[in-house]
Amino acid sequence: MQNSDTAIKKDNASLVSSVLDTFLAAKQEQAQTLHPHYAELWDEISRLIQSGGKRLRSRMVLLSYGMFGGKDPQGVAPAAAAQELLHLGMLIHDDIIDRDYVRYGVNNIAGGYLHKYQPFLDDAADRRHFAQSASILAGDLLLSESYRLMATSKVSAETILSIQELLSQGVYEVIGGELIDTELAFRTDAIITAETVARHKTASYTFILPMMVGARLAGATATDQAHLRDFCQHLGIAFQFRDDIIGVFGNEAETGKTTIGDIREGKRTYMVEQFYELATQVQKDEFERYFGNVSVTPEQAEIVRQLLIDSGARAHTEAAIVQYEAHARAALSSLVVNPAHQAELETLIIVATTRKK
Amino acid sequence: MQNSDTAIKKDNASLVSSVLDTFLAAKQEQAQTLHPHYAELWDEISRLIQSGGKRLRSRMVLLSYGMFGGKDPQGVAPAAAAQELLHLGMLIHDDIIDRDYVRYGVNNIAGGYLHKYQPFLDDAADRRHFAQSASILAGDLLLSESYRLMATSKVSAETILSIQELLSQGVYEVIGGELIDTELAFRTDAIITAETVARHKTASYTFILPMMVGARLAGATATDQAHLRDFCQHLGIAFQFRDDIIGVFGNEAETGKTTIGDIREGKRTYMVEQFYELATQVQKDEFERYFGNVSVTPEQAEIVRQLLIDSGARAHTEAAIVQYEAHARAALSSLVVNPAHQAELETLIIVATTRKK
Repeated sequence: MQNSDTAIKKDNASLVSSVLDTFLAAKQEQAQTLHPHYAELWDEISRLIQSGGKRLRSRMVLLSYGMFGGKDPQGVAPAAAAQELLHLGMLIHDDIIDRDYVRYGVNNIAGGYLHKYQPFLDDAADRRHFAQSASILAGDLLLSESYRLMATSKVSAETILSIQELLSQGVYEVIGGELIDTELAFRTDAIITAETVARHKTASYTFILPMMVGARLAGATATDQAHLRDFCQHLGIAFQFRDDIIGVFGNEAETGKTTIGDIREGKRTYMVEQFYELATQVQKDEFERYFGNVSVTPEQAEIVRQLLIDSGARAHTEAAIVQYEAHARAALSSLVVNPAHQAELETLIIVATTRKK
Repeated sequence: MQNSDTAIKKDNASLVSSVLDTFLAAKQEQAQTLHPHYAELWDEISRLIQSGGKRLRSRMVLLSYGMFGGKDPQGVAPAAAAQELLHLGMLIHDDIIDRDYVRYGVNNIAGGYLHKYQPFLDDAADRRHFAQSASILAGDLLLSESYRLMATSKVSAETILSIQELLSQGVYEVIGGELIDTELAFRTDAIITAETVARHKTASYTFILPMMVGARLAGATATDQAHLRDFCQHLGIAFQFRDDIIGVFGNEAETGKTTIGDIREGKRTYMVEQFYELATQVQKDEFERYFGNVSVTPEQAEIVRQLLIDSGARAHTEAAIVQYEAHARAALSSLVVNPAHQAELETLIIVATTRKK
């Protein structure tokens, strides 16, 4: 089974790459006729889209499409590729909000423009402002083009409108999640559980949107769509909780990301909520000396990690992941899935629940 | 004729308002279930959308729809209203780029959030950053929802995809125009004529997009669409050149905007290009002492204005507007238009060519 599973993934990935390449080449050529500097923006977008990303979302569209009997992956590849445009657009805007200039280990759009504008703008604050301005425009383009690219799929116009509805609902929820998540860092009047943020920011946008797009493209029944949505809802929350654990306990050599950032930032994850449920006052007092302190040392971060373990917060979070996984599997059991797709789903479940990076 | 013309406009305006009100109420209610702070973002959007704007674009959709025989303005009002969402989204992002906090004489989204975040963020730079972050998210929502709202028009799914294509082309061009226009202020390697910027930023987005949407909704023939596009192209450039003249020579009491801003900024308009074609070296030297100087006084601004007049730059720009208007009217003469719509078109032509504010 592993072989045909790998073959499906490879075929699907190259279908998506081919759509993206053709799309980007056309946009760039058109931009050139408007002005060479506009073509530069598309160069930056192409560079970034080709620099990395797991392309998890487009894979999910095509997996789900196949699961529900879709027979023309090439015809629906634009809808899958559109997910990658959308996601890059959202990441570009997120990076502005997070004041980040690096993505996938390379310059993001703002990072690229920071270099490009160096000869023209002496003032560093001005340079940052205009680099971020170019980023705003790049994200807008990708968001807009994701609707348009989706519409070039070879399905009925009615089906296209139906998957666009999923797109707009996904955007609506992820932006709500992003706003609340951003405000959580400083609004002392914000009360929201990490589970709610995970539901909207991760489950709806990262899992439900692409998987439901695939299902609708394949013409899945309403009942099957409901089971699929249920599966995605639970798996998405598990994915976010795993992400939170990796953010604190991950192996930096494997993840390529610092595991001290979330501790310094004082990120209010489900695991941290569990800590406050379970810890003694003494543990809480010690925790608060370091958690959310921007100048925390690696040794102090290790104390925070130990407190998360000793209090049982980490174990409770692991247990929650197991539970969400079980719910997800229960929803999945209502669907008839052939072995090749089952193998890909297992890969997806592993990514969501037990991955290390 | 004036009466029925006014009646059409009023009916259309209330159709659009009603769609916007219903849309905003639904989004806000949905946001409330996600989190009250997300509902606050929709409050800000509603406040801004109800604060002003000429609603020129939605009027143009319905005018064009009527011109080509469309009989169900209520059914297509969502496509018209979608233009207003799109435009507000673009303005919100433009304001970030221009570091503006006011729009329609009231706080824009960033301005609103600057106040909202006051109790939570002591640092002014942080407060600006997060206020602008909320603005980025608001603009993204409106861009995304403009595709979605358009899709609720009561026309065939194929027609909806066809007008969405216009939307994405309009966004593609206006963003290219915005990037180039922004970079013109500091990139010394930028060579572009003001006419090219006007073509993409104003003609394509402000005129061609809404008028063509209306035409396609009404099922106009390809020949008629070509004439309409030609009309919009010329009228849009005239509109931009008039805007540039008002920006420097307008009556502040009438326009509600400063007429010194463009002079301080050194905005490279068609009129300024004409100045460099026509002026003597002595005139150019004097002009450059003040033009683009951020601390220019009202008296010095008056010298700049006089130089634009004396050199013939203003008169040449007025002549260009007359010429673009003539081209627009020639394109229009190929279309059969009934008197009520003709009266509305005249209003539009006056707005574009001879308005004072």
